[in-house]
Amino acid sequence: MELLMNKQALANALQLVSKAVAVRTPKQVLMGILLEVHPDELVATAYNLELAIQTRVPADEETGLQVRQTGAIVLPARYFGEIVRKLPDTQIHMRVDANYMTEISAESVEFHLHGIDAEEFPELPNFIGYESMHIPAHTLGRLIESTVFAAATSEVRPALTGVSITSDATQLTFVATDGLRLAQHRVAHPDLPERHVVIPAKSLSELSKILPEDDSPVEMVLTPSHGLFVLGSTRFYTRLLEGSYPDTSRLIPRSARTQVVLPGDAFLQAIDRAALIARDKDNHMVRLEVEGDTLTVTSHSPEVGNVSETLHALRKEGEDLQIAFNGRYVIEAVRALDAAEIAIRFNGANQAFVIERSGDPSMLQLISPILWRS
Amino acid sequence: MELLMNKQALANALQLVSKAVAVRTPKQVLMGILLEVHPDELVATAYNLELAIQTRVPADEETGLQVRQTGAIVLPARYFGEIVRKLPDTQIHMRVDANYMTEISAESVEFHLHGIDAEEFPELPNFIGYESMHIPAHTLGRLIESTVFAAATSEVRPALTGVSITSDATQLTFVATDGLRLAQHRVAHPDLPERHVVIPAKSLSELSKILPEDDSPVEMVLTPSHGLFVLGSTRFYTRLLEGSYPDTSRLIPRSARTQVVLPGDAFLQAIDRAALIARDKDNHMVRLEVEGDTLTVTSHSPEVGNVSETLHALRKEGEDLQIAFNGRYVIEAVRALDAAEIAIRFNGANQAFVIERSGDPSMLQLISPILWRS
Repeated sequence: MELLMNKQALANALQLVSKAVAVRTPKQVLMGILLEVHPDELVATAYNLELAIQTRVPADEETGLQVRQTGAIVLPARYFGEIVRKLPDTQIHMRVDANYMTEISAESVEFHLHGIDAEEFPELPNFIGYESMHIPAHTLGRLIESTVFAAATSEVRPALTGVSITSDATQLTFVATDGLRLAQHRVAHPDLPERHVVIPAKSLSELSKILPEDDSPVEMVLTPSHGLFVLGSTRFYTRLLEGSYPDTSRLIPRSARTQVVLPGDAFLQAIDRAALIARDKDNHMVRLEVEGDTLTVTSHSPEVGNVSETLHALRKEGEDLQIAFNGRYVIEAVRALDAAEIAIRFNGANQAFVIERSGDPSMLQLISPILWRS
Repeated sequence: MELLMNKQALANALQLVSKAVAVRTPKQVLMGILLEVHPDELVATAYNLELAIQTRVPADEETGLQVRQTGAIVLPARYFGEIVRKLPDTQIHMRVDANYMTEISAESVEFHLHGIDAEEFPELPNFIGYESMHIPAHTLGRLIESTVFAAATSEVRPALTGVSITSDATQLTFVATDGLRLAQHRVAHPDLPERHVVIPAKSLSELSKILPEDDSPVEMVLTPSHGLFVLGSTRFYTRLLEGSYPDTSRLIPRSARTQVVLPGDAFLQAIDRAALIARDKDNHMVRLEVEGDTLTVTSHSPEVGNVSETLHALRKEGEDLQIAFNGRYVIEAVRALDAAEIAIRFNGANQAFVIERSGDPSMLQLISPILWRS
């Protein structure tokens, strides 16, 4: 294997795939980046068995890629990435010689790096024969952001560490829950194949980092065991989670005994201030009292002190109430909704409550209260 | 104690002093910020017994400070700082009531925070009757930056964890050494009082963060036990280190068997690349070979690979040589010099070598070689 290419093109490709490099494992090859050189492109791949990122660099004027000899090698990601970053910003020459020793040189700098036989690199999952669907990158990004934080971090119920994705003829739904709160986001989308999968939340977080902010189409392919997302010349593979995901639809209350509409920012800031006093408590307990159209947010810590703040609802329907909740959950929920106006639907102090964008039921956050004696 | 003031003015004062708050200590009062309210100013102080920062906020239009009742209180820094940061950006009202409970309110937000009796706050060191000297902030900043990194981090020889500062009728000299490398920076300064003190490197690092980038004068006062730096309305106090500092002047070789002058950036990058391969070794060993006016920088790791790079000296005098050193030390030394051209003076493979700005002996970096068989 031998090639010439611009330093920046190689550095960009390595940075892109580096998120899928295994951090600590006895299998050294998983801590490496696979480079495959074809007559007209370089393919860089990292695969930690949970997720894989693969990107293709074409031989053209912009990348400066010139292939002298095809071939493949696995190089230790930690060193390879830093070596390329620290090289002069000019043309790089790479050549693999006997015993997988790889020369990486530019100007008067010459590195030799021990590589690993490309045959040892694991095979990527196969998606041949599976139907694909297309979704704009920006929409996919919002679906992930607005749900992924609500997935469980504990491994007690493994399926809950993922985000449940359901598609059918009319819509695409993302749901995540850790058992105490739930985030759901649904977009209308005609003609999707029917699928129900659970993708590890960690994988989706990494995917969201490399999604472009625009509406370029992302191709999504789901098999019974794996998911594939194709973004231009980059392919993102993830393992799916096994085990059944709970039917969350019946957790969501349809009616409300109290409904308030609030400015999203003012409510977020009030909860953020109250959670500050409550942060040393395990459950970040914040209390909310709705009386007429006045909301009073309070929290109290015997060691630190207390805080109280009043807000006025833009609209209020139904009965007054007092409720307590984990302030951090509410902060994350309201941030995810990212709305000028939010609507909160309560069903008494001991029932889960729903936070939505006012007038927009496509996104929904459900939070369990903390039980307390008034 | 009761006052009104602008949120931003209070937040700025708290941020400034917060670096001197104790992080973990059984003495709660040291984790607090002392507020003293006088008829025409607010004084905020933090003091962890090693260093203290005190700043004065005048009652004027810009700060919005209006004193309703003088007094003093100590508030827990961790909560107080965040509370103020999270308040609406408007006028803040503070009032201390019975039992040191402190109300901090703005608009419809009202915090109550448990305070501590100001009588419990330790007294700051006294500088009355000591002569002061004045030095431009930018000069003091450069003196610190170019030496402080070379101080020892191990407490085996406590004096070496500080920077030695010597002043006399003609000059001011900063020296730091950890026993393997030494940094010295000297500026001409007429009419300074004669002093020799050792200031903890940690204190100087904190001081350099709050020094303005300009040439405003900093007043410096040294007693046998403490140092004081006055920057406008802010006072920075530090404990001095006890124990004698070694006489480092005779460590510095006056002559050279080999001298090379190099472009600073190119040399820095070459050592940085070589240190990358050597980084997993305890001593970051980089080898340098000078042959004619050609320098070859190499490093080698049995597990990772190797690197080699050639540079050309702008000027070279004296004999050829091969030498090995800790690449990280050389990187820090060359960065501290921050010079377009550097001069290196060697006295054979087994003697410490000197790196200076070419043509400027005011700053000097001395580094011990690593002994190896060629």
